[in-house]
Amino acid sequence: MIRVGIVGGSGYTGGELLRLLLNHPDVEVTQATSESNLGKFIYQIHPHLRGRSQLRFTSQAALEHCDVLFLALPHGEAQKRINQFSSVAEKIIDLSADFRLRDSAAYKAAYGDDHLSPEWLGKFIYGLPELYRNDLRNTNYASGVGCNATASILALWALVNAGMIDPSTPVFIDAKVGSSEAGKTPSDSSHHPARSGVVRPFALTGHRHEAEIKQALAKCGTFDVRLTVTSVELVRGVSAAVHLTLPPPNARERDMGSL
Amino acid sequence: MIRVGIVGGSGYTGGELLRLLLNHPDVEVTQATSESNLGKFIYQIHPHLRGRSQLRFTSQAALEHCDVLFLALPHGEAQKRINQFSSVAEKIIDLSADFRLRDSAAYKAAYGDDHLSPEWLGKFIYGLPELYRNDLRNTNYASGVGCNATASILALWALVNAGMIDPSTPVFIDAKVGSSEAGKTPSDSSHHPARSGVVRPFALTGHRHEAEIKQALAKCGTFDVRLTVTSVELVRGVSAAVHLTLPPPNARERDMGSL
Amino acid sequence: MIRVGIVGGSGYTGGELLRLLLNHPDVEVTQATSESNLGKFIYQIHPHLRGRSQLRFTSQAALEHCDVLFLALPHGEAQKRINQFSSVAEKIIDLSADFRLRDSAAYKAAYGDDHLSPEWLGKFIYGLPELYRNDLRNTNYASGVGCNATASILALWALVNAGMIDPSTPVFIDAKVGSSEAGKTPSDSSHHPARSGVVRPFALTGHRHEAEIKQALAKCGTFDVRLTVTSVELVRGVSAAVHLTLPPPNARERDMGSL
Amino acid sequence: MIRVGIVGGSGYTGGELLRLLLNHPDVEVTQATSESNLGKFIYQIHPHLRGRSQLRFTSQAALEHCDVLFLALPHGEAQKRINQFSSVAEKIIDLSADFRLRDSAAYKAAYGDDHLSPEWLGKFIYGLPELYRNDLRNTNYASGVGCNATASILALWALVNAGMIDPSTPVFIDAKVGSSEAGKTPSDSSHHPARSGVVRPFALTGHRHEAEIKQALAKCGTFDVRLTVTSVELVRGVSAAVHLTLPPPNARERDMGSL
Repeated sequence: MIRVGIVGGSGYTGGELLRLLLNHPDVEVTQATSESNLGKFIYQIHPHLRGRSQLRFTSQAALEHCDVLFLALPHGEAQKRINQFSSVAEKIIDLSADFRLRDSAAYKAAYGDDHLSPEWLGKFIYGLPELYRNDLRNTNYASGVGCNATASILALWALVNAGMIDPSTPVFIDAKVGSSEAGKTPSDSSHHPARSGVVRPFALTGHRHEAEIKQALAKCGTFDVRLTVTSVELVRGVSAAVHLTLPPPNARERDMGSL
Repeated sequence: MIRVGIVGGSGYTGGELLRLLLNHPDVEVTQATSESNLGKFIYQIHPHLRGRSQLRFTSQAALEHCDVLFLALPHGEAQKRINQFSSVAEKIIDLSADFRLRDSAAYKAAYGDDHLSPEWLGKFIYGLPELYRNDLRNTNYASGVGCNATASILALWALVNAGMIDPSTPVFIDAKVGSSEAGKTPSDSSHHPARSGVVRPFALTGHRHEAEIKQALAKCGTFDVRLTVTSVELVRGVSAAVHLTLPPPNARERDMGSL
Repeated sequence: MIRVGIVGGSGYTGGELLRLLLNHPDVEVTQATSESNLGKFIYQIHPHLRGRSQLRFTSQAALEHCDVLFLALPHGEAQKRINQFSSVAEKIIDLSADFRLRDSAAYKAAYGDDHLSPEWLGKFIYGLPELYRNDLRNTNYASGVGCNATASILALWALVNAGMIDPSTPVFIDAKVGSSEAGKTPSDSSHHPARSGVVRPFALTGHRHEAEIKQALAKCGTFDVRLTVTSVELVRGVSAAVHLTLPPPNARERDMGSL
Repeated sequence: MIRVGIVGGSGYTGGELLRLLLNHPDVEVTQATSESNLGKFIYQIHPHLRGRSQLRFTSQAALEHCDVLFLALPHGEAQKRINQFSSVAEKIIDLSADFRLRDSAAYKAAYGDDHLSPEWLGKFIYGLPELYRNDLRNTNYASGVGCNATASILALWALVNAGMIDPSTPVFIDAKVGSSEAGKTPSDSSHHPARSGVVRPFALTGHRHEAEIKQALAKCGTFDVRLTVTSVELVRGVSAAVHLTLPPPNARERDMGSL
């Protein structure tokens, strides 16, 4: 039985994680932290878990040793305390954006700030099994993956891997996204009267997930990736249309011959 | 030209009021207050008013005299400062729930707290023109009306007025409501992932608007009004189904004969 | 292994039935009919069943003997051929409205037409296990249950069963319903531009399911049931608010003492 | 007063046209045809026009002379009878796709069939005033414009007109569309249970409106236009994101210098 702890268990990511792990035959969830809901039962915050667990939220300060520690904190938090967390469990899976990029310059370009633990960036494997299954088997540190990035990478992967895309022209990705992407904290833009029924292009250029997509596709070349994200009436899910031009047939045969 | 001021102009009520008044040929909006958006242009908070007004939000402390003062404050605020407001304009229209009920005991029963300016309750006319058109013409103080209460009263009015309802049996009202009813401030229950697509019965009994409905129907008898409110996927609007039993034909004829 | 056949397998009822039965460890679906989709694979009509079954739709004329025959035909069809169907299988479960009422006069009052096989009405058990679990164990003929009727009966059952409702006053039921209730055939009222986002009270009085609800509650008295149905933005599901008056405490104790 | 007739007045296009024309101070709607609703009042089919007109639908066979004749027929119908219609009014505005393209080969490539009145194609002006205002002032024959095409052309027009787009790379257009685009006739794909809440990419390549967009942009070069259309939860409206690459600054200056 794998003993699992969760840091930051009261958000949407933590809630989904709990739902999946409580169902897993080989896992025992031994602890879940939430500073804002300290002492409450998990099911008070995630009512769909009623009857599934009698755990109460604990504090990060009271973390106990376990086999695997999931970090489900807001972006920017895991990198502040990764050394502390690494003393709690041998294996860490971070679901934020903190350890998805391997390069600190790419991190700063995408997120604007210097990474606070750049020496850790190279230790993490990007947690997309379709691309990194073997690496993930052999690592102690795995990152989660961006929602829009995952939809985009999976759409592109087979073509890129087969060498059927010409890196000299941009790849345009148009993602239509649901409201749960933005997490559990209410805001003006998530307020139902403002969000219901919209078709709202909110990130036409410069979306942070472009960096993840480029990194994932890098072994096949340097792609110019342009990701546009539009909110539509939807709670869960992403639909990404990837617009690109295949090379002419001759070029394609030639390239595929060289694979 | 009627010079109008608005206290609390940045919420949904204030925004709708501004939209209507800026269109009104006989009205000039001379001031609108918002403490949290002090100094901002009205159209920065209400983008649909762009190009319609160059007013900036002012402070309540800087209110200047005008002909009519609208109060569009959160419930409970107008009653704290009604004396101050009454020195600013001869005519006051309050859009909150503060002056809808004429009786301080009814107010306390519905809202839980003692009214802070009970001597003002009797001065206000309930602002539903279908019921109180003449009274409204002759008053300096009018209240706004509850959303669910208005839908219910208008559905019932003709029957009640014709004496066709038996006050000895309860009137059941089942209102389906949109999300803008709850105002402009984001909350857990208005967060789109939680609110989208719901059919959520959130006030099955004891809704505060029952008191307004009873008061409006009072001149035809003492009704036992039971209002149930269910949130549905809708932004604006209320649909109220009123369930009641008409008296048998003979009884009805007799009653109508006595009108 | 129970061999099951389905008559009318291409509608929403048939599709849900197939989904459940294909998952059932003790059931083998041996045949499913559809005259309009004769010869097509089931998964062509119900894409979510792709990979779950290699059955093709057959004709009613080619029905073969099986253990249980489900009828998922439009209302009015099962009663035309119930004798034929009863020769195909010993046990029949009809999902239409044809055999829900036990009384032919009640059927005519609710549906407008004379029942075509009234001698069969008494043989069927109303298929709501919460009320008729034992009867269902011992019958060869079970009916399905109305969607709005089920929501209403389950809401009322505990109170009725405990004698806590006064049959002398009406029970008002206000159901908010999704669009799948009306089945798979497109119509003007199900057309998305006309149906999306509505709050449409489409059956304010006289809904056919009132008869089922009265019948289910009959062993506790003769109730005056008033069912109102409103379409809201929702695909699946019904939310029924039941409005009624409990007897005064003394009366209640007295009644419960006599249970 | 301009006397206007409408052929095909019962669909969504005809209904919107009637709404606009009945409001127009210089227009009198003298006739509107509908074969399927012959003799019915317009407001029976378009309830939002109740009280606005007492016209009844007439037959195409009974068309009387008028100043302007609008054709709001399904695609393919106007081209069959354009000679007949041209004898009814000097000016014709066709709202279908029949006369949008000026070239019969382009028509066949986009629509699959030979055009039935190719000699009329050159007489019509594409009815987008932003592009063809002067031509429209001087023509007797104007076509309507495609919904997705209009959103796309207007998004592109300023850039194309300023020579800021490089025709050597494709223009990718990703349109998110509402359900009213598909018109008033119910279908499996417009059935609410199937259409509600979808994010359904239904025309990833080869959309017919590509031809209109290319034609509109033709005076600035031959563009490779790729239009992708995705249905989202929305009734009215289109949101088109146009993905393209601006030429490098030097190239741009050079091009603009030559304008």
